[in-house]
Amino acid sequence: MKKLNTSPISGMLELLPSEQSAFNKMKNNIGEVFRKHGFLNIETPVIDRTEILLAKAGGETEKQIYKVIKTEETLDDADQALRFDHTVPLARYVVEHENNLTFPFKVFQVGRNYRGERAQKGRFREFYQLDIDVVGRNTLSVNYDSEVIATLFSALETLGLPKKLVRISNRKILSGFLEELNLNHLSAEIFSIIDHAEKVPESVTREKLEGLGLGEENVARVIAFIEISGSLEEALLKLNEFNFRSEKFNEGINELTLVFKRLEEKGLGDSIMADMKIVRGLDYYTGTVFETVLPDYKEIGSICSGGRYDNLAGFYTDQVLPGVGGSIGLTRLFSVLKEAKLLNAVVEKPVELALIPFSENEIRFADKLAKELRAEGRIVDLVLAEKKLGDKFSYAGKIAKFAAVIGGNEIKTGKVFVKNLESGEQSSLDEFRKK
Amino acid sequence: MKKLNTSPISGMLELLPSEQSAFNKMKNNIGEVFRKHGFLNIETPVIDRTEILLAKAGGETEKQIYKVIKTEETLDDADQALRFDHTVPLARYVVEHENNLTFPFKVFQVGRNYRGERAQKGRFREFYQLDIDVVGRNTLSVNYDSEVIATLFSALETLGLPKKLVRISNRKILSGFLEELNLNHLSAEIFSIIDHAEKVPESVTREKLEGLGLGEENVARVIAFIEISGSLEEALLKLNEFNFRSEKFNEGINELTLVFKRLEEKGLGDSIMADMKIVRGLDYYTGTVFETVLPDYKEIGSICSGGRYDNLAGFYTDQVLPGVGGSIGLTRLFSVLKEAKLLNAVVEKPVELALIPFSENEIRFADKLAKELRAEGRIVDLVLAEKKLGDKFSYAGKIAKFAAVIGGNEIKTGKVFVKNLESGEQSSLDEFRKK
Repeated sequence: MKKLNTSPISGMLELLPSEQSAFNKMKNNIGEVFRKHGFLNIETPVIDRTEILLAKAGGETEKQIYKVIKTEETLDDADQALRFDHTVPLARYVVEHENNLTFPFKVFQVGRNYRGERAQKGRFREFYQLDIDVVGRNTLSVNYDSEVIATLFSALETLGLPKKLVRISNRKILSGFLEELNLNHLSAEIFSIIDHAEKVPESVTREKLEGLGLGEENVARVIAFIEISGSLEEALLKLNEFNFRSEKFNEGINELTLVFKRLEEKGLGDSIMADMKIVRGLDYYTGTVFETVLPDYKEIGSICSGGRYDNLAGFYTDQVLPGVGGSIGLTRLFSVLKEAKLLNAVVEKPVELALIPFSENEIRFADKLAKELRAEGRIVDLVLAEKKLGDKFSYAGKIAKFAAVIGGNEIKTGKVFVKNLESGEQSSLDEFRKK
Repeated sequence: MKKLNTSPISGMLELLPSEQSAFNKMKNNIGEVFRKHGFLNIETPVIDRTEILLAKAGGETEKQIYKVIKTEETLDDADQALRFDHTVPLARYVVEHENNLTFPFKVFQVGRNYRGERAQKGRFREFYQLDIDVVGRNTLSVNYDSEVIATLFSALETLGLPKKLVRISNRKILSGFLEELNLNHLSAEIFSIIDHAEKVPESVTREKLEGLGLGEENVARVIAFIEISGSLEEALLKLNEFNFRSEKFNEGINELTLVFKRLEEKGLGDSIMADMKIVRGLDYYTGTVFETVLPDYKEIGSICSGGRYDNLAGFYTDQVLPGVGGSIGLTRLFSVLKEAKLLNAVVEKPVELALIPFSENEIRFADKLAKELRAEGRIVDLVLAEKKLGDKFSYAGKIAKFAAVIGGNEIKTGKVFVKNLESGEQSSLDEFRKK
């Protein structure tokens, strides 16, 4: 009988070993793609100074941040909290270690972040994020925008998902657009309305815009603007109809065009679309912004997003550090894929061969054999439980694909038979080794 | 100029990319050994209920635990804190998921734990631990004690360390010994004195024991007891001299003997010694206890330790769950190895080949080539920075072992030359690919 509540805290994903194995495979595959693309791995502490973590934030972030109570021993230290993303600690890291880094700094991070969100299905308070970023010093080529999108896309390819679509925009287009309409002073409000436009009926978006007092004509223009989506050519055609001269507007269009060109060269032409609804909230983005969706599973929402920021660490240093990055929220992705029965990673039995010594006398022989097989790359469990043979087999059947009993006869003759625990088929150890 | 203090909080290890790469290699190699030995991976949340985390603890642990302040959104939840080891969350995990696990449950955990220790050289507040445990239901063969020690030893072998020595004892021997002397009521105090005996002169240990009012004869006996160390034979000879009949005492000796027999069978005879000074503090251990040291670097202390516990989750459930486990504290180990210049992992340049498009026109070709080479398993960086060729080469020299420039001529002839950035040697791309 339980004496205490042993369930994990709400909002924390805790997996059974077979699920964990599938999760780890996804995580490792993604990390491997990042590495092969020349991104370097770093890790930052989960606990950081509140002053650093909240230098820019405010609003939701501040409400959701997990503060940490200092212990007797750490009383001298500054206020501390748990990091809520990888970007803020990256900014601190780059400023701190600037002289020991090579720029552009291509970096990836894999780790758990924390947000005290209201408990809700599909929302996690502890969640894995896998981020890549390219950080320049003073300047950074827009070519890295497409490089980041393509690298993340390659990473997603390892997960065996259904068709993916990257929706891309550029914040400069929207900013320039608002400049032309003399609406810059309302940009935060309008960004936020656009960001939510997809989740509400058009009438609500219209109402919210009208609530800002834009005037009928401007409301119509903003609505027309956010409805622009499709191929780059379709988008450009409609954007050009506005006939705007704003430098920012046209810079955004040029950057978007270049990003599309590079991604088409990379063979991603069929997997990208221009979409002016993509804003990425009130985040620090200043140029390219993107989201990745599974068009056949719209309810899943964005599975990978990011963008370009002009100045990563402006709150910490005078040095200008432009960057571009993106993130895969793996905990949420794993959970929705599981829900939608799209988890590609077949949950296999984790152990290849369970070696069962018949009695204490055969442990030494079995142990030696296990060592040899592991050196050959096999995952081998030595069954040491003091149980009846039948019980040992039933244990093996739960964790392993194959089993072999080592008894006195096997040792005498040197002939070991391996049983396939699913088919019941027997084969010699030599045959097993060749597989 | 910096505007804020960007150093990580004291007690948190933050590595440069090359160091991180060396750290990751060690971590992955150890995890791979665990996996090959049939241990299954799980992860528990870093945040857990304080009630669970502190059910057993007290003393130091309670003072050092990092409590977490609830946010507006999580106000309904119980008191929360950060886990300080892997064993407590494992106990909760096993109780929670008991019906979905196969026993004996062979499990490994890799992750960061948190203790608000006084800032001090070599002490970390955030630290990686790599744990293995075997948890039984009601019973668990002592053979798993040696299995755990041998698996951890194999894991340490991947780190290329100097000679390692596992010092082994059994808490039953010490408990039985105190029973015979009628000193059970002082066992916590005596355990603690023995645990510290190595760090102080013998006179201090003697003084402390005398302070407990044991009487001269008993003090002499305890001192004689804790000086027992060496081969199993030597230890048994001296233990038998006490001529004790206590069942517990003799059970401990039998278990120790079996553990040594198995480890000798596994070829570890030269790497183990019996040592009655090994107690492992006031922990929950009840049988086998062990520590691993590098005898030529005594100042490093234990790099891997663990033991047997009769009842893992007694605070959470009535179900009896005996277990045996051990842990490698990788953050501390990495840090002391670095200090002692024993870091075996050569810090290599992380990228194999930097592909440098001469201009915008060659990006497409270079990109395609990068993709091919990555598919062949290579780590390839595409240099997209808008810099002069010389600057691109100097960037490449910092991150990559080889570089190749893709210009119009390379595309026309299809002949690409690869330059070794250390030796300056040139070779054809075909030759590079064969390496």
